[in-house]
Amino acid sequence: MKKAIVLLSGGMDSAVTLYMAKQGYDVETLIFDYGQKATKEVDCAIRLSEAAGSPYTILDIDLPWQGSSLLDGDEEIPEGGENAVGGIPSTYVPARNIIFMSFAVSFAEAIGAEAVFIGAHQLDFSNYPDCRDVFFESFRNVIDKGTRSGSVGAPVKVETPILNFTKKDIVAKGLELGVPFEFSWSCYKGGGEPCGSCESCILRAKGFAEAGAPDPLLSKELRSQG
Amino acid sequence: MKKAIVLLSGGMDSAVTLYMAKQGYDVETLIFDYGQKATKEVDCAIRLSEAAGSPYTILDIDLPWQGSSLLDGDEEIPEGGENAVGGIPSTYVPARNIIFMSFAVSFAEAIGAEAVFIGAHQLDFSNYPDCRDVFFESFRNVIDKGTRSGSVGAPVKVETPILNFTKKDIVAKGLELGVPFEFSWSCYKGGGEPCGSCESCILRAKGFAEAGAPDPLLSKELRSQG
Repeated sequence: MKKAIVLLSGGMDSAVTLYMAKQGYDVETLIFDYGQKATKEVDCAIRLSEAAGSPYTILDIDLPWQGSSLLDGDEEIPEGGENAVGGIPSTYVPARNIIFMSFAVSFAEAIGAEAVFIGAHQLDFSNYPDCRDVFFESFRNVIDKGTRSGSVGAPVKVETPILNFTKKDIVAKGLELGVPFEFSWSCYKGGGEPCGSCESCILRAKGFAEAGAPDPLLSKELRSQG
Repeated sequence: MKKAIVLLSGGMDSAVTLYMAKQGYDVETLIFDYGQKATKEVDCAIRLSEAAGSPYTILDIDLPWQGSSLLDGDEEIPEGGENAVGGIPSTYVPARNIIFMSFAVSFAEAIGAEAVFIGAHQLDFSNYPDCRDVFFESFRNVIDKGTRSGSVGAPVKVETPILNFTKKDIVAKGLELGVPFEFSWSCYKGGGEPCGSCESCILRAKGFAEAGAPDPLLSKELRSQG
């Protein structure tokens, strides 16, 4: 079967993307430990990859610079969409998806995979510039012009299957495909439980509420507290 | 003064680029340890940065996949331009400059630098797709579309001052600016002395010969043997 790389963050979006990719590809996942406060993300990504039966590779690229409230450091992660500058929230990590996509394309060329999947979406999202269709279109052009696969006429494909999904659509698709959402982590913060108030927690709750389904991550935690 | 990031490999091209960047910017360098056989490159990059008085940051991103004869592994580095596939030599590292540029742009946004310099050149080069003007043009578009600096109308600039220099031009410019070429390393292999026969050694020798200057790296080694 054709091979593909899926970028797996440990969140619900990339989890659903993983299960969608598995419908047409033999998948390997790529997980980044980049100094994010939510260290639980990496553990969740490993569990999701194992549950899906996909081999994973972890890249430790702990960024030595700051520039985002999402990274280790003193800056507070804002409630909701506060602290946005020019419409872009303080949780923006400079060039993050460009870095992630670059490694994914390198990995794909090295093992002969023909596609890279990323779970970005531009509806119900946080206004990150590197989650928009125009960004992915520009990155496809970089692959055409700057890689071996592009030079020989078989550029690594960039697949964004949930780009125009709402959070409700993402939850519904995940339920349809049997995604184990209890292994996914969305909260930007580092605690043992989701904070419930950061923008990512709010968007996740919106998705489950609109899909009319309980969030198994919360249910499980409530059960363990009962 | 305005700030800029210079990607420094330890080779003569990025060394000259560093000294050119210093003419207009307060420079910080970014050095990558990515599993290359020529481990001496990193030491040379540090010495070059120190000689130029520019602070350096080393990123250890040892690629866990192969796919290039330049990386650790069993594949032989070819003599001259042998083993080229589709015109691209086996020393091509998948998506290397895309990865390097991505980190550089992230660093630039994090510290408020307005430009990133890279010493790529498309004359007297090894036919790497990620050293051509069309690649850099496509990457500028990625910065426009996928970063915060692009979104607010002040995209990090990509500067390629030696893109259309020959190796002779590079040597001449370096001599003019006082670049300490004795601290630069070009050989693709890992030995204590340049092999003299890989494509990078051949291109370096061509540059010095055409510029009518001795290579101080070789002179110094000959002296130490005398």
